[in-house]
Amino acid sequence: PDWKIVTEDNIRKLRREYRFNNFLDALNFTNRVALQAEREDHHPSITTEWGKVTVTWWTHKIKGLHRNDFIMAAKTDALFH
Amino acid sequence: PDWKIVTEDNIRKLRREYRFNNFLDALNFTNRVALQAEREDHHPSITTEWGKVTVTWWTHKIKGLHRNDFIMAAKTDALFH
Repeated sequence: PDWKIVTEDNIRKLRREYRFNNFLDALNFTNRVALQAEREDHHPSITTEWGKVTVTWWTHKIKGLHRNDFIMAAKTDALFH
Repeated sequence: PDWKIVTEDNIRKLRREYRFNNFLDALNFTNRVALQAEREDHHPSITTEWGKVTVTWWTHKIKGLHRNDFIMAAKTDALFH
């Protein structure tokens, strides 16, 4: 599975890394994920590096994972393919 | 000082958090930092979250901090002010 469940500060989160051939392709994906997040009003952490974007989903209000996070993860994948 | 030196995977890095009032302002700053990085051909890690952007500089080739990272940190601050 491409998404892993990680625990940070006792909060369970969903995380996936996406690979790209350069920095601008990574940045472009970051923007697409971010604008979708803004539309859905559910915001992940997005780390942009050379050739890599790491997206982390969790639900702040419950300090953990909600069904919606898994839906957002699937929607993030759809932006990548 | 706003920049801290952190150690990750035995690599010393420079890190600063910038605060914003919403997600899109954070994303806008991420894009400005990223485009400057691309122009200078020196690329940080940029984590975008709701109201917060974390920028981390280091030099991959030497697995540590080079004088140029401190210069890039100052240039990042200039984009914020």
